[in-house]
Amino acid sequence: MSISSEGSAQIGGVLATNAGGNNTVRYGNARDLVLGLEVVLPDGQVWNGLRRLHKDNTGYCLRQLFVGSEGTLGIITAAVLKLFPRPREIVVALCAVASPEAALDLFNRLQQHDAAAIQAYEYMSRAGIDLVLRYIPVATLPIATRAEHYALIELATPREGAGLRASLEEVLAAAMEAGTVLDAVIAESGMQRAALWKLREEHSEAQKLAGASVKNDVSVPVSNVPELIRRATEVCERLVPGIRCAPFGHLGDGNIHVNLVQPEGADPAAFLARDHELMDAVNKIVRALDGSFSAEHGIGRLKPYMMPEWRGGAELELMRRIKAALDPKGLLNPGKLLP
Amino acid sequence: MSISSEGSAQIGGVLATNAGGNNTVRYGNARDLVLGLEVVLPDGQVWNGLRRLHKDNTGYCLRQLFVGSEGTLGIITAAVLKLFPRPREIVVALCAVASPEAALDLFNRLQQHDAAAIQAYEYMSRAGIDLVLRYIPVATLPIATRAEHYALIELATPREGAGLRASLEEVLAAAMEAGTVLDAVIAESGMQRAALWKLREEHSEAQKLAGASVKNDVSVPVSNVPELIRRATEVCERLVPGIRCAPFGHLGDGNIHVNLVQPEGADPAAFLARDHELMDAVNKIVRALDGSFSAEHGIGRLKPYMMPEWRGGAELELMRRIKAALDPKGLLNPGKLLP
Repeated sequence: MSISSEGSAQIGGVLATNAGGNNTVRYGNARDLVLGLEVVLPDGQVWNGLRRLHKDNTGYCLRQLFVGSEGTLGIITAAVLKLFPRPREIVVALCAVASPEAALDLFNRLQQHDAAAIQAYEYMSRAGIDLVLRYIPVATLPIATRAEHYALIELATPREGAGLRASLEEVLAAAMEAGTVLDAVIAESGMQRAALWKLREEHSEAQKLAGASVKNDVSVPVSNVPELIRRATEVCERLVPGIRCAPFGHLGDGNIHVNLVQPEGADPAAFLARDHELMDAVNKIVRALDGSFSAEHGIGRLKPYMMPEWRGGAELELMRRIKAALDPKGLLNPGKLLP
Repeated sequence: MSISSEGSAQIGGVLATNAGGNNTVRYGNARDLVLGLEVVLPDGQVWNGLRRLHKDNTGYCLRQLFVGSEGTLGIITAAVLKLFPRPREIVVALCAVASPEAALDLFNRLQQHDAAAIQAYEYMSRAGIDLVLRYIPVATLPIATRAEHYALIELATPREGAGLRASLEEVLAAAMEAGTVLDAVIAESGMQRAALWKLREEHSEAQKLAGASVKNDVSVPVSNVPELIRRATEVCERLVPGIRCAPFGHLGDGNIHVNLVQPEGADPAAFLARDHELMDAVNKIVRALDGSFSAEHGIGRLKPYMMPEWRGGAELELMRRIKAALDPKGLLNPGKLLP
């Protein structure tokens, strides 16, 4: 699992929030990596579910109830996680692509070729890259062609002699011939790999330095990502002229961070005052595309107000009943997750 | 997913019981394959959770609560499942191995070499193979060396030109040199692949024809499988002289079916009268090896009596609270799963 907060996040928190990140396309979310849990319950009892079994059908799957419950049902104090073989070969490439559709097409080509090798497949817009190049002194774009859209590819495999680089070159050559990829660079060393990833990882920091921003952590079915990027950009630019709409993130699992940076020189407070308006505009598109208003960041204190609209009726009622059954006094993390 | 009941099982049932089977080692259990569900709740409401998202952190993960709940919390009426690329290459081999430890060693070698290619890794004992050869007329053993233990390997990949057969030959050659594998045969055609699988798939049918049997669907951490096979065989042969102990199944995910067939010519009813004694003896070993008393078949009506011993205390209390919260009148599948 690779997440931006990996330097400070703790395993209990990673599980309680069902963290995602860059490698979900390969290994799944935190939920998919856990075999067993130990949890302190609201009444002080400790549930010892520290199993390390791949098959165990003995009643309700409690661990999956605690994972992603954001500390509202119990406190995770220990866990058994799955391990995967360490990759023997890693290849990273940055591609300039003609459109969001081209970025999806390239992902599909990689999937057709060798789906199991895709470790990360990230989308970046020109607006996002431009902010990184402007505000992060060490960042450079090692690709001649400037384009409106970019894809960052990481392939990895624990197989010996898999010839991953040749395999990637083959896919890229075919994609260039088809007009999907305009230009591409493959990292030649660990340092170059890190430099390519820096362009992606510094998105949040660059946006912070550029002023106020409104963040949308949303997901749609993978095939709907191009339409999400197009429509969200269009609507936000219409609502706030001069806004820097910098969608980026995990195209391979359908999770795009539609981050919106204030127009240059505008008043930050006035921009932030429109946060609900902008979030609602993006969410309306997400909804039309069968998506979710919270992909990997969860609900916390920011989004409980959205729950009735998105998860209302039977679903919210089920959640409330579960909360009441496990934590009847409402002791754990009040005000979070449930409205 | 590949399960013995695939000709008759329905998707709702497969999910309600969190079915496993031969390919769990690669694709996970039914639980791991589901993105969304529609469920009819005990009060008649319908929960529409038919999402097709890889990231969606919006409250408690209800779908994982219904999967494996054996129809006691709701009735699954529709589902969204993950799809995987169809393999382009499949190789199947049968290996005679020196011991259960050798069977595990061979599995580890395959994992080291190319873990993602392992589609199934099944263990069979000589007793199980002998019953198949005796009672299933079309079954044949296309391997000269008779051994006490066998491994059935299926490798598969959607990659083009992966050279899976050469790759398997390389691993087998090294394993033979090390004394792990005594003899091996690789299927040369689809018909030969089917013939090798028949030896495994006819285990249950052959055992039925051989008389009464007591079945233990248990799991342990993969590294403990050899000890489970040894100790369970030893204890059962001591308890019932002449018993045909035929452990077989999914070594790759730690799930072994410790099936016990009555001694030849013995009274079936007298043998079956000792079912709890035999199950308890096997379960005692499973427990000592950090395993589970029900791996993939679930609890149903047969095993609720085991729940207090294995899942008692906080865990069973949590399950009862969830059942009461979702189905306060106890309408759904009474007498199943919970004691």
